[in-house]
Amino acid sequence: MYRTKTCGELRLADVGKEVTLAGWVQRIRKMGSLNFVDLRDRYGITQLVADDNGPVEVLDALKGLGREFVIQAVGTVTERQSKNAKIPTGDIEIKLSCITVLNQSLTPPFTIEDESDGGEDLRARYRYLDLRRNPLKNALMLRHRIAHEVRNYLDAQDFLEIETPYLIKSTPEGARDFVVPSRMNPGQFYALPQSPQQQKQLLMVAGYDRYFQIVRCFRDEDLRADRQPEFTQIDCEMSFVEQEDVLNVFEGMMRTVFKNVLNVEIANPIPRMRWYDAMDNYGSDKPDIRFGMTIHDLTEAAKGKGFSVLDGAEYIGCISVPGCADYTRKQTDELTEFVKRPQVGAKGLIYIKLNADGSVKSSIDKFYSPEDLKKIAEVAEAKTGDLILIMSGDNKRKVQNMLGTLRIEMGNRLGLRNPKEFAPLWVVDFPLLEWDDETNRFYAMHHPFTAPKPEHMEMFYSDKKEDLEAVCANAYDFVLNGTELGGGSIRIHNADVQKRMFEVLGISPEEADYKFGFMINAFKYGAPPHGGLAFGFDRVCALFGGSDSIRDYIAFPKNNTGRDVMIDAPSLIDQVQMDELCIKSVLPESDKK
Amino acid sequence: MYRTKTCGELRLADVGKEVTLAGWVQRIRKMGSLNFVDLRDRYGITQLVADDNGPVEVLDALKGLGREFVIQAVGTVTERQSKNAKIPTGDIEIKLSCITVLNQSLTPPFTIEDESDGGEDLRARYRYLDLRRNPLKNALMLRHRIAHEVRNYLDAQDFLEIETPYLIKSTPEGARDFVVPSRMNPGQFYALPQSPQQQKQLLMVAGYDRYFQIVRCFRDEDLRADRQPEFTQIDCEMSFVEQEDVLNVFEGMMRTVFKNVLNVEIANPIPRMRWYDAMDNYGSDKPDIRFGMTIHDLTEAAKGKGFSVLDGAEYIGCISVPGCADYTRKQTDELTEFVKRPQVGAKGLIYIKLNADGSVKSSIDKFYSPEDLKKIAEVAEAKTGDLILIMSGDNKRKVQNMLGTLRIEMGNRLGLRNPKEFAPLWVVDFPLLEWDDETNRFYAMHHPFTAPKPEHMEMFYSDKKEDLEAVCANAYDFVLNGTELGGGSIRIHNADVQKRMFEVLGISPEEADYKFGFMINAFKYGAPPHGGLAFGFDRVCALFGGSDSIRDYIAFPKNNTGRDVMIDAPSLIDQVQMDELCIKSVLPESDKK
Repeated sequence: MYRTKTCGELRLADVGKEVTLAGWVQRIRKMGSLNFVDLRDRYGITQLVADDNGPVEVLDALKGLGREFVIQAVGTVTERQSKNAKIPTGDIEIKLSCITVLNQSLTPPFTIEDESDGGEDLRARYRYLDLRRNPLKNALMLRHRIAHEVRNYLDAQDFLEIETPYLIKSTPEGARDFVVPSRMNPGQFYALPQSPQQQKQLLMVAGYDRYFQIVRCFRDEDLRADRQPEFTQIDCEMSFVEQEDVLNVFEGMMRTVFKNVLNVEIANPIPRMRWYDAMDNYGSDKPDIRFGMTIHDLTEAAKGKGFSVLDGAEYIGCISVPGCADYTRKQTDELTEFVKRPQVGAKGLIYIKLNADGSVKSSIDKFYSPEDLKKIAEVAEAKTGDLILIMSGDNKRKVQNMLGTLRIEMGNRLGLRNPKEFAPLWVVDFPLLEWDDETNRFYAMHHPFTAPKPEHMEMFYSDKKEDLEAVCANAYDFVLNGTELGGGSIRIHNADVQKRMFEVLGISPEEADYKFGFMINAFKYGAPPHGGLAFGFDRVCALFGGSDSIRDYIAFPKNNTGRDVMIDAPSLIDQVQMDELCIKSVLPESDKK
Repeated sequence: MYRTKTCGELRLADVGKEVTLAGWVQRIRKMGSLNFVDLRDRYGITQLVADDNGPVEVLDALKGLGREFVIQAVGTVTERQSKNAKIPTGDIEIKLSCITVLNQSLTPPFTIEDESDGGEDLRARYRYLDLRRNPLKNALMLRHRIAHEVRNYLDAQDFLEIETPYLIKSTPEGARDFVVPSRMNPGQFYALPQSPQQQKQLLMVAGYDRYFQIVRCFRDEDLRADRQPEFTQIDCEMSFVEQEDVLNVFEGMMRTVFKNVLNVEIANPIPRMRWYDAMDNYGSDKPDIRFGMTIHDLTEAAKGKGFSVLDGAEYIGCISVPGCADYTRKQTDELTEFVKRPQVGAKGLIYIKLNADGSVKSSIDKFYSPEDLKKIAEVAEAKTGDLILIMSGDNKRKVQNMLGTLRIEMGNRLGLRNPKEFAPLWVVDFPLLEWDDETNRFYAMHHPFTAPKPEHMEMFYSDKKEDLEAVCANAYDFVLNGTELGGGSIRIHNADVQKRMFEVLGISPEEADYKFGFMINAFKYGAPPHGGLAFGFDRVCALFGGSDSIRDYIAFPKNNTGRDVMIDAPSLIDQVQMDELCIKSVLPESDKK
């Protein structure tokens, strides 16, 4: 061992001890006759000191040091003159008797500090140096701790962690698969799993009762900021359970992990919200309930005053933004621009200001008297000083969705979304089916194995479109602070119900057999009632850390074009490899050199 | 919840309780007026009973039941008349008041018993039914338990589990990579990792100090019985350590896991054996030390009696098989055939029998007097009743290797290899370099980043071939019962030593830069001294379970041609997928249809 202690553990009680530390040179400085080195390792920073009258070898060695050199330091723990209350080792320093350089370092291309001077690209290329910075180190340590607590909880609940294969079969539904050519089976391909959904359901058929896995999943989708081609899931499945059982187990898991990792007590019980209420009141199936500002329906209250935009709308809704009646024209214009961006897609924004002096001012004063506006304000549950923001349109859900986006924006502007506050929520009672006007058929909102709610079984067998649209699924999402962290469902285990589901989706028995035959067959041999869910582990970690960026919580992430710029992957491979795999690249003209 | 209790938990103390169980019908039988059902779930088997005068609904339901039906059973816990001491629930049975069929089952294609009547292929196709059998269920439960204990131990030792990417870069060295075409980077490929070796060393450069991961690895090799294209590794790396530190940490891990999982105390300390001694005495770098029968060198003792085969040999060695002097001609012929198989490759086998009556009989009586043979027996440390088996050849290591194989065979025949006995061993002091006569150069025995032993550094810089051949590596293998379960090394962290290594291996600076440039570059920024190791987790599980077959310890394994016959992967993919990936299959004539 190159050390007797780490750089994070020495305290006043250790004064007088002879110790050996090893680590990286964080900082070197001279004050009067004293020479200081901050030595860093994973566990902390310890100050080393030598005065100008100290051992010549030490002084010589100090002269040769540079940032990020790896050194071994021997010395005596001493009480500091000027203590540093910001770090746990701030009461002591090491009076050096010997320094050995274990390895030199070139000057890093950016500073290894909490706030680095390096740009994102540069830091990505030198990820191994970026990972030395505290924010990333803390993120990965948090990730380890969460995974460990999740495993302990699930183990204690009799869940078995069972590894499922990464080389599986490409499925014709869902997102795009990554595929792997098989050398031993020329012309054939494995697929990397988008999730171990089939395997975990088979484990239930096999009687394993409670399964989990913290498992990598792969999706070849065009990337967004919070998407990675490979991501990690806490994947779970249970047998002989109903929805209530699943919610209870995983509510317990989240509660335990929050308590053990962050010492945070989350709401008990975690509130539940019907999907319909989430859409109506928050314009989102993943509402951020850290703040109110819910949506109000003005469809009745705002019509009939001769303003054609509203009079012709199928739905009119609003949010009441507290204390923002004094927004300037510039500010309301900004908001209008915000909702008109293609990502939101609104045509415009109507405002009503309930001024502090009791007067009312709106962008629709031409059509509405102050009394009309006050009536609207009543429905909107707005108070004096509030700013009412109104949108309308043909499609209720679309307008609600835009209002939901605006609500989040206002939450951000007003500082109502504190990342250290945690407001979990179960969203339940999703519709089972979504009607698509274009293809004139129903689609499964989750997947075709999701069970209808038992009490809706009669409607599920109805021929009426309205009935089918009203059927709720035994499905649930776990939402935290406006982010969906997980979701799942009770699965169909009954052959009749499954057959009806395919019928409703317009999938012929032949097509069902081609697409899902293997699963359907397995279910003929005694499939138990079962259900489960999966959490997006990268997101869980980011939210626990109070961050939006999952990249900081992944040791070696990919960039937006799916590249690992540190190791420069993907890359060309040898012709020999291509030949052995019996494949050939067929590049589009634009990619040829 | 469909049950109030599992099928494994009811005892005499529960008599009188009303319970609801759910599970699979293992067996149905009628004895006199009593109708029995054995109900099975993951936790055990509980007997259900109804007499012919019981509730009509129950009797009707019983009539419709078949093997592997999924049922829910309600009844009262009752003391059994005839107890079954073989199962923990054998003292009680459930007097049925209600049975509900939750799902029917077709008759499974083989029996769900500890010894099934199904062949290997059939069971592989219905893996989800095979997994219902106890041996497989116990194997996967053992695997979960081991993984959990490993994680708890390493977490307590301050190791961080850090997930490394599965989509990385193909490397020109080592085994064949599985590759993944990149849609977003046409013509380019990711590779699936053969191990996270580079990433874990980078994590040490990044200062993470102690890393581990239970991680999937991929090798596109032709498969053998104990090989899978995807396998799992316990992968570890530590900074600021010497070999002794690594051995201590992982010796502690193995001791803890053996104790906590199997309640077995393994040797303390675990014995260590130099590679040279392992080769000389066991003819193997992974000796099974559960039994003796070590190899003895007869090169001196057996020469000069006019028998040209031995007189001309570079090396003569033997093992003394205890109590087998009474082997018949047929038996010794069998052994000769065994060593002549191509897998062993010997030209022949000489035997000497030290008969119980004091006489000596050998296959070389023509050249050797009884006194000569007795002298040989002395060197061979053979006793009366033993059978000495001798082989010779030009290449000492090759002959020792054949003797080692024969030794294992004799150990099997004599029942000396009890799978419930655990004899761990560290093999240390491997040669750093292997000379290859064909290419007239040295190769790294482990990999080119393995450090020479510090005390051999001078020899490492010598120009003499003998010196270089004598350099030992700071490398170590963990061996259990004749199987290598893990191995690792202290890595080179010093740029000079690494430069010398490439020089010795005949790798030019340009080639080194092309092949390893990225790692070499990272190491310029303050790489700490570090080392680690990796355990083959599938094999660890199999050996803990007392089995040779890793397939039983993998939920969904591949067969010998790399196929998952259950889901039928690999398979053809859509032309659309191929086009999006810019690849084309180029099938050899023989594979075209």
